[in-house]
Amino acid sequence: MIYWEDLEVGSETEFGTYHVTREEVLEFAHKYDPQPFHVSDEAAAKTHFGRIAASGWHTAAMTMRVIVDALTREPQAGLGSPGVDELRWLKPVYPGDTLTMHGRIVDKTPSRSKPDLGTIRTQTTVTNQDGVDVMRFTSIVLMKRRPS
Amino acid sequence: MIYWEDLEVGSETEFGTYHVTREEVLEFAHKYDPQPFHVSDEAAAKTHFGRIAASGWHTAAMTMRVIVDALTREPQAGLGSPGVDELRWLKPVYPGDTLTMHGRIVDKTPSRSKPDLGTIRTQTTVTNQDGVDVMRFTSIVLMKRRPS
Repeated sequence: MIYWEDLEVGSETEFGTYHVTREEVLEFAHKYDPQPFHVSDEAAAKTHFGRIAASGWHTAAMTMRVIVDALTREPQAGLGSPGVDELRWLKPVYPGDTLTMHGRIVDKTPSRSKPDLGTIRTQTTVTNQDGVDVMRFTSIVLMKRRPS
Repeated sequence: MIYWEDLEVGSETEFGTYHVTREEVLEFAHKYDPQPFHVSDEAAAKTHFGRIAASGWHTAAMTMRVIVDALTREPQAGLGSPGVDELRWLKPVYPGDTLTMHGRIVDKTPSRSKPDLGTIRTQTTVTNQDGVDVMRFTSIVLMKRRPS
């Protein structure tokens, strides 16, 4: 089990990869983000996307899946996340892309009120098969400290 | 068509509501966020959630759906969103909840480089049937200015 003490500011991890299929892009968009450029090639061709692009929230969901799988392989004493800062959709994600998710720990703070807890801030970057960064966010995670 | 000029800082909108079903919570979690407290009643009972709670990314996706439906009823000259700031999961979302999504315009800025564009910042708040705020974020949206 990895505790708050075990994580170092500046350390980097490759969480894993996710292959984006057209079927899944359409399924997510029809359910949660049916803007024309996410569900129609014709409509997308008239926008800067050029062709159907994944919903930004879909990219976030795919990223979460890769992170959860990584945490299943290397369990951490995490207690959930109060939120995310500076979520940015930098470039379109297209069907057929293969995304790689990286994390870099940018900050850690012990809890002021609870001596057994601490907070970690991780900047997650998602890069496509051409090495282009397509999404970035900084997540806040509450963790247990190593029992003494 | 609603242009950048038509939106006023401080104005508020109710985007709509979304009913959260157990089936959908499980489906999303199995696909994108299979942490134990999102997929197992037994595991969730051992955490502060108490019972299965929706993935925070699922709550974001449901919110997007309600916003897209509102924008379909009242089209805006939006050009997509570069991102979201201060996304916070304030309280758990449970199967059976009915969520209401509100927006409040908190800032608008004309583009420095492109005279036909402007940016709007909207704080979106999601509230459950008991009036408890469960999620909040501030989205950045690029919009066209009214053609002169």
